[in-house]
Amino acid sequence: MPLTKDMILDAAEQVLRRYGPDKTSVIDIAKSLQVSHGTLYRHFASKAALREAVTERWLDQSIAGPLEGIAGTAEGSAAEQLRLWLEALIKKKRDYAAEDAEMFAMYAAVTLERGPMLTMHVDRLMKQIASIIERGMRAGEFKPGTADAVARSVFLATESFHHPAHAHEWSSETVDEDFAAVWSLLLSGLK
Amino acid sequence: MPLTKDMILDAAEQVLRRYGPDKTSVIDIAKSLQVSHGTLYRHFASKAALREAVTERWLDQSIAGPLEGIAGTAEGSAAEQLRLWLEALIKKKRDYAAEDAEMFAMYAAVTLERGPMLTMHVDRLMKQIASIIERGMRAGEFKPGTADAVARSVFLATESFHHPAHAHEWSSETVDEDFAAVWSLLLSGLK
Repeated sequence: MPLTKDMILDAAEQVLRRYGPDKTSVIDIAKSLQVSHGTLYRHFASKAALREAVTERWLDQSIAGPLEGIAGTAEGSAAEQLRLWLEALIKKKRDYAAEDAEMFAMYAAVTLERGPMLTMHVDRLMKQIASIIERGMRAGEFKPGTADAVARSVFLATESFHHPAHAHEWSSETVDEDFAAVWSLLLSGLK
Repeated sequence: MPLTKDMILDAAEQVLRRYGPDKTSVIDIAKSLQVSHGTLYRHFASKAALREAVTERWLDQSIAGPLEGIAGTAEGSAAEQLRLWLEALIKKKRDYAAEDAEMFAMYAAVTLERGPMLTMHVDRLMKQIASIIERGMRAGEFKPGTADAVARSVFLATESFHHPAHAHEWSSETVDEDFAAVWSLLLSGLK
């Protein structure tokens, strides 16, 4: 059976979860696939590239993909849709930080490196926000403006609730109240 | 000459800057003051307490103190004053991250611990924002509301520009443009 990218990523994700990103070597992943590490290097040039590819797939499947469903809705209040979208993003981040600690730690590390993959992920999320804001602008629910720029601002202004560097703050007792207050200020700015 | 708190903090800050927080011991600080570490422990119960006290004084002197001057002004546009205050906070954080890396790293570490000292520092900053917002509300420049809650939202919504966990993003080419966009959304929400 030929070695597919998905087979490698499945094995890599499993091994990374078991040993953690620091202790996992490319040899460990090659072993679990019963191939030589030379074979693996033909698909991924480095352990960093492999780690990034695993994180990219995880972000697509766990965060950006599911949120696409909310952003794709074109009915009802855009404000309500945007709040739901943000709350879903925040809930996902919190849940993964607590329940999928290894993958979340890997994602947090990749975030610090600020490579092109992470920029693409953030762009994908901002585009989802922009599509909601654009609909709200067209409907006259939001004041007119450049949807992309406003979406970027909404994303940045809510980072303390979804950026992985703030994960240690998400267990705070006031975090939901804080988000509600920030949301209310932003919504007031959008309208 | 009796050992004062300020003398200890001066020595501790010097030693911490020289060796970095991880490599500094209470014994190093005691040596630089030519006292026994027992004497030092009578003033500060632990290395952590000493490190926190040094950071607290640094935050007061370098951040909260100087900003008080801007917040204390009661003339002109409150919106303009709030923008100046935020820009000053952001500039200070960026400058210290680049030019006073040891103290900034210590402050970033203390931030992760989220102890009462840091809460007090953040509260002090939020009170300064609240005083500006309250003046703007009284003058009818900002829409009415609870100044403290709105101030907290403004602080949280701008964290990607001043929270130390985001320091690695402050050299981005778009950071000034990003702040301008977030500020414009927030201002629109305040008015």
